[in-house]
Amino acid sequence: MFQDRLRNLQEKMKTRGLTQMLITDAPSIFYLTGRWIDAGERLLALLVKEQGAPILFINELFPEKEEEGLTFVWLKDVSDTMAVVSAHVDQDKTLGVDKNWPSGFLMALVEKLGRYDVVNASLLLDELRGIKSEEEKELMRKASKLNDEAMHILIESLEENMSELEVEERLKIIYSDLGADGFSFTPIIAFGKNGANPHHENGNRLLKKGDMVILDIGCRKNHYCADMTRTVCFGEVQEKEKKVFNIVLEANKRAIAMVKPGVRFKDIDLAARNYIEEQGYGPFFTHRTGHSIGIEVHDFGDVSSVNEDVLKPGMIFSVEPGIYLTGEFGVRIEDLILVTEDGYENLNHYPKEFVVL
Amino acid sequence: MFQDRLRNLQEKMKTRGLTQMLITDAPSIFYLTGRWIDAGERLLALLVKEQGAPILFINELFPEKEEEGLTFVWLKDVSDTMAVVSAHVDQDKTLGVDKNWPSGFLMALVEKLGRYDVVNASLLLDELRGIKSEEEKELMRKASKLNDEAMHILIESLEENMSELEVEERLKIIYSDLGADGFSFTPIIAFGKNGANPHHENGNRLLKKGDMVILDIGCRKNHYCADMTRTVCFGEVQEKEKKVFNIVLEANKRAIAMVKPGVRFKDIDLAARNYIEEQGYGPFFTHRTGHSIGIEVHDFGDVSSVNEDVLKPGMIFSVEPGIYLTGEFGVRIEDLILVTEDGYENLNHYPKEFVVL
Repeated sequence: MFQDRLRNLQEKMKTRGLTQMLITDAPSIFYLTGRWIDAGERLLALLVKEQGAPILFINELFPEKEEEGLTFVWLKDVSDTMAVVSAHVDQDKTLGVDKNWPSGFLMALVEKLGRYDVVNASLLLDELRGIKSEEEKELMRKASKLNDEAMHILIESLEENMSELEVEERLKIIYSDLGADGFSFTPIIAFGKNGANPHHENGNRLLKKGDMVILDIGCRKNHYCADMTRTVCFGEVQEKEKKVFNIVLEANKRAIAMVKPGVRFKDIDLAARNYIEEQGYGPFFTHRTGHSIGIEVHDFGDVSSVNEDVLKPGMIFSVEPGIYLTGEFGVRIEDLILVTEDGYENLNHYPKEFVVL
Repeated sequence: MFQDRLRNLQEKMKTRGLTQMLITDAPSIFYLTGRWIDAGERLLALLVKEQGAPILFINELFPEKEEEGLTFVWLKDVSDTMAVVSAHVDQDKTLGVDKNWPSGFLMALVEKLGRYDVVNASLLLDELRGIKSEEEKELMRKASKLNDEAMHILIESLEENMSELEVEERLKIIYSDLGADGFSFTPIIAFGKNGANPHHENGNRLLKKGDMVILDIGCRKNHYCADMTRTVCFGEVQEKEKKVFNIVLEANKRAIAMVKPGVRFKDIDLAARNYIEEQGYGPFFTHRTGHSIGIEVHDFGDVSSVNEDVLKPGMIFSVEPGIYLTGEFGVRIEDLILVTEDGYENLNHYPKEFVVL
């Protein structure tokens, strides 16, 4: 149990006038307890009140060790789990719950409680998780360092006539060899015109001379996520590709250069977007500039033109502008950026300048 | 829109006294409409009433074509989506909702409705989806036929010193070459003592002579799932392995031989379980015998010792007994079984007898 994180949450609950909260998202339970428990369809919940030890409702199938400062309530498959949970909920007070909790659980709990007095309290944890501690920053640096190394090995290993799926498979092995815990998301390996779809699914297309190659890859290490994109030119340079590449690179750099506390997320997005528009490629930058990242590859909050929230030290998000030319090729360049006290730290160090392999 | 499936659902709603239902699970929306829409975090819902055309609430980002017999209500990212939905809900009647709908949506809808009168109605669709139509049976046969072919190619391609991850990667390519739409689940490739963990995660272990090899694999084709396990002996036979293999094989066959309408799921489980117990390996068969399958690799319902439900023609489930000997090896043999009018049809035809490669 991270007692400091718990105290921060209880502090936030007090500010919002909430006296009890049922936390059910595995990443949030991990954030508070340091325990990653994949309970599948079984009930797993952490009941946090204004004070006192939180209560973890957990099926006895999961071999978790008890500890001080955390009360365990063991459930069986045959237990009336919701009767157990409802007996611990203060009957006359509003209960905060996570937005992702499957409704079947919520409806069963409401039935046991005999009344509906719940509120979506996800934002409290989203806000806490949005500001990384020193320990978390170090974990994020480690995951991105592994990702830098993997990108290096992967790019060195590209060969003509490899398929996208073969590159994906090679990456899986590279991560495993480097000691990562697996993908943080299914990587996007897009050759040539496949790169023009930002959500391309890897297939059997073979790598050919002249292809632009998008490698959008991320690993997970100790439950923290990396995510980086590089675009490289395979074999032969073409002028249009190089020109578009350099526009995206400049957009990436301009957006990153904006990062410091007090700036709004939308300003980061607009720095990239406005530059790409000025260069005449506005309609081809078809997505937001980035997303927050941490225990989940998409943490709460994004770098979009409508997000008025202000950057604070300890936030980490991706900056990944792109240009997508249907039928031709695509370019995307992505780094993870940590907001520091007076600026930023780029967690990715693998070079991003134009290269021809 | 499958109008016959819709009518069946409306019939079931009437029997249960439910006049309106909000369906939000992508597989269930696909089952009713024939449209697979991955809406991510955006609201997607199908409102079905006792009669009349259902209403599909869908974000305008998704390029779905309108059709007769289905009313489209287009949402924007800036829409007050719950106000739109609640305006279509009958205010004085109970609303059925899916058990998996994230609670954040449900709480927002309840707030707009100004009252809590909802009920978990997932079972209605679970029951309908549990009985496959002729068209669905054919799709399930096709997916399993691809899986048989993939198993054949995969087993032929096993070589000493391949890693589990390399086998997984090879399988991905085999599926792609055969025209499958990808994995229906992350395959389990377990060499030697790794096979003793039924939920093994593939790693870097290399294939060695004398290894028992578990291959638990499935593809997806046209949104229907395959799932099959074979265990093969690589290189050198050992007596204990062969003995355990034949016990599992006999358990698999005995369970399958039980399948016909009117038999209970638990009887199928017990046919396998009792035989393994008789042979002295009861404690090493550590999971249920199988699970229903269809649009999802784990559809509602399972072949377990506590499921009293009765088999009906059109149901499809796995039969996959196993024996797991920690520190030594594991054996699991799995087929997909369709309940017919007077017995069963095995959807898997790849041989399952003991073989030494």
